[in-house]
Amino acid sequence: MTFILFGATGDLAKRKLFPALYNLYLDDKLPASFSIIGLGRKYSSDEDFQAKVEKALRAYSRRSVQLSNLQEFLAKFRYFTFDATIKESYTQLLELVETQENELGIPQNRLFYLSVAPSLVDVITTSLHSNGLDQNRGWKRLIIEKPFGSNVETARQLNHKLRKTFSEDEIYRIDHYLGKPMVQSLNTLILANPVLDSLLDQKLISNVQITASEIVGVETRADYYDKAGAIRDMVQNHLLQLVMTAALYLPENLTDNKTRAKKTEIIESLRPIPKEEAHLHVVRGQYEAGEIHDTPVIGYKEEPGVDASSQNDTYFAARLAIDHPAWEGIPFYIRTGKRMNKKSTQIVVEFKHKMVDSTKLQGTSPNLLVLEISPNESISLRVNLKEASGNQFKPVWINFSTNSENQPEAYELLLFDAILGDPTFFAHWREVELSWEWIEPLLNAYQENLLPLHPYRAGSTGPEAAEGLLQEDQHKWW
Amino acid sequence: MTFILFGATGDLAKRKLFPALYNLYLDDKLPASFSIIGLGRKYSSDEDFQAKVEKALRAYSRRSVQLSNLQEFLAKFRYFTFDATIKESYTQLLELVETQENELGIPQNRLFYLSVAPSLVDVITTSLHSNGLDQNRGWKRLIIEKPFGSNVETARQLNHKLRKTFSEDEIYRIDHYLGKPMVQSLNTLILANPVLDSLLDQKLISNVQITASEIVGVETRADYYDKAGAIRDMVQNHLLQLVMTAALYLPENLTDNKTRAKKTEIIESLRPIPKEEAHLHVVRGQYEAGEIHDTPVIGYKEEPGVDASSQNDTYFAARLAIDHPAWEGIPFYIRTGKRMNKKSTQIVVEFKHKMVDSTKLQGTSPNLLVLEISPNESISLRVNLKEASGNQFKPVWINFSTNSENQPEAYELLLFDAILGDPTFFAHWREVELSWEWIEPLLNAYQENLLPLHPYRAGSTGPEAAEGLLQEDQHKWW
Repeated sequence: MTFILFGATGDLAKRKLFPALYNLYLDDKLPASFSIIGLGRKYSSDEDFQAKVEKALRAYSRRSVQLSNLQEFLAKFRYFTFDATIKESYTQLLELVETQENELGIPQNRLFYLSVAPSLVDVITTSLHSNGLDQNRGWKRLIIEKPFGSNVETARQLNHKLRKTFSEDEIYRIDHYLGKPMVQSLNTLILANPVLDSLLDQKLISNVQITASEIVGVETRADYYDKAGAIRDMVQNHLLQLVMTAALYLPENLTDNKTRAKKTEIIESLRPIPKEEAHLHVVRGQYEAGEIHDTPVIGYKEEPGVDASSQNDTYFAARLAIDHPAWEGIPFYIRTGKRMNKKSTQIVVEFKHKMVDSTKLQGTSPNLLVLEISPNESISLRVNLKEASGNQFKPVWINFSTNSENQPEAYELLLFDAILGDPTFFAHWREVELSWEWIEPLLNAYQENLLPLHPYRAGSTGPEAAEGLLQEDQHKWW
Repeated sequence: MTFILFGATGDLAKRKLFPALYNLYLDDKLPASFSIIGLGRKYSSDEDFQAKVEKALRAYSRRSVQLSNLQEFLAKFRYFTFDATIKESYTQLLELVETQENELGIPQNRLFYLSVAPSLVDVITTSLHSNGLDQNRGWKRLIIEKPFGSNVETARQLNHKLRKTFSEDEIYRIDHYLGKPMVQSLNTLILANPVLDSLLDQKLISNVQITASEIVGVETRADYYDKAGAIRDMVQNHLLQLVMTAALYLPENLTDNKTRAKKTEIIESLRPIPKEEAHLHVVRGQYEAGEIHDTPVIGYKEEPGVDASSQNDTYFAARLAIDHPAWEGIPFYIRTGKRMNKKSTQIVVEFKHKMVDSTKLQGTSPNLLVLEISPNESISLRVNLKEASGNQFKPVWINFSTNSENQPEAYELLLFDAILGDPTFFAHWREVELSWEWIEPLLNAYQENLLPLHPYRAGSTGPEAAEGLLQEDQHKWW
């Protein structure tokens, strides 16, 4: 195949894509014949580009660079100076692609990777079509990064444009949370362990909690972030994808090809929160100055590039209800925030707790199943064990995790899937559209100021109001 | 209460009962006023008896003797020289009991403990009645040790005799396997952990395996053992009690007062094995010379006191079917043996293994839940985890056990229950009778030589035929 990378001089290419390709190469997971064409606006030679790729590998590859194959790997890379707005760019690109295909005997399989500003997506995909780059005899696929629109309307427009050149089956929308090894291996882990399968039984489950907390603040992304907020940056995509992933494990077993259909079923069942009721189920927050690991940090409004009167959310928590027979009466709580006390992405399944004859069960606490997605991958179970003497119980954590060293990175797994043509761990258009539809009334509530913006101290666990949300149901965040 | 111990100079009293009483005393679990009257044939003074008790505590108590309370504890002990066949023994005993009750202000609660030869049980219990020892105003209870008969007929006769003096509610038949902390705490452990509860779901279970293996040979018990065999010594009582205990955990939760009713339900549902079919489901064996931990040991027939042509079984394995809706199609395999390769009593629950799409599940093995009862107490779960890289699974043990140091001993727990009047962990007459009824055709098969006696090497895992029993069902012993 030919891998055509728009945005080859960008940060994502350097930190994630080149290392991912190299590690796939080390594992012999790339096609026998392939070529990588990096596109960027700046002028550069193939040699300079290859030197940059090498530098990126030395800095970011999870496995160290091997001299025995480095030159062979770098020789696959070509650079092409490209202006997305000029027709000649595309005709010359086609020429280069075809030359490479002929010279290297590569079948006409083309993977287009868009790692560019959202404003360029339209013109690039349209021009690919009008200049015949999509008229190949092999397969063609488009990988596209977030953001996928900024509301339901713009998402639909974007999708409509993409569909002029690519069919839905050819579009691979990256959500890198779906590339995390824990998310990817959950299905086989459950298949391999009927005991885990049996625990994911809705009859046993009290509630599900999904947390994606970050220590970092807005960093250098204020330009984008101050418009997007946590709701667009994290909730519409990553958190709702994790909700679909967690809710997916219905009692029947899943084969991969049912995964997407089931996910759509879940997101279709997500009960809408009308804007008038948003304040009952949603807590939004914004960080103030505080301390992270004993170091003082500034508040969101003081961050460079952020409007001093910004009402943007850096924290979002909500109670969701899934109107699906399997999840009747089992709330899903989600939350995400910047400048929290720790970096952690996890799904916690809280089991119903028996309170019968409580004198016999002193010291017990609900059983929990925790799927940690990041920064480590692990599965843990919290059970109540009796103390050696006496009848007092105490909760004890049992860790199911494998050694998570040297796990493949998300982009490695996702690129591999895209090359194989397996869309399981990419966001389908219906999932994206329905996520935006669910988000829409909340965006309206934001705009009409129907939702208070709760300040929280940097380095804390978020606004107190988020605790209250669970207390109303006699639950607590784990 | 007054604790009246028949057989106070015996091995059981020394090794188990005195230490159990002392540890209950340390935990403040004995009645505020109590007296212990030890009965034996030999003449002894109270002082000598107390010195023997002290010596027993120093040798066998799990917690060391505390000088601050030792004398107070020993002062509770009286010795009474007793001949079971003489009427005066009983009238004098009654006098002594009443004197103690009056002097110490003890209510007329009497616990009779029979740790005597089976031949004496009849005369003792009958004489207790005829001499008015059971005419007290408080409660009276009888604790009786195994063997409880040697077949269904003798068991019924024995029970009939006991019932002249004690009602069923007053008879506490000791099965010390039911006193093991793991067996005793299983119910609350499951109540405290809905996740454990959900694993004990018959829909998930492939089969259940109960093993009680010993390293020791016949030791000095040939006189009894060569007549009883493993089937009477271990199977009719301990193994069938563990079958009832394991099969007890039906999806509905149990309160203690339902335990006995449920156990009876299980043993009633145990499918009879007619003597003609015994060879299809039962394997009996006898150990030959071999090695235990690199030390040569002699065969059963060479053991002192054993007939050189003995056809007695020192090993027993069987496949059981429980004709109860909950256990439809789930075999229970049981086995016990002397001179095996290790000492271990455990219940293994093997879960159904999914073989769908086996290329994805390479290296997986059935999930197992292991309840280790002895020598350690633990609960372990075996799950399949993915290796760090690649898609290969490997089975990994997860240990749920609490620190098992300083657990109370079986006799401590059982004596405490008997003092409280809680019969949950004692064998009910119906359980005993039905167990013997189930055993009866096998005893007949033995007698008519319908079952081959498989030799096995001391220090091995038992006869090969026992492996074959499980292989027929595509299973294996864990």
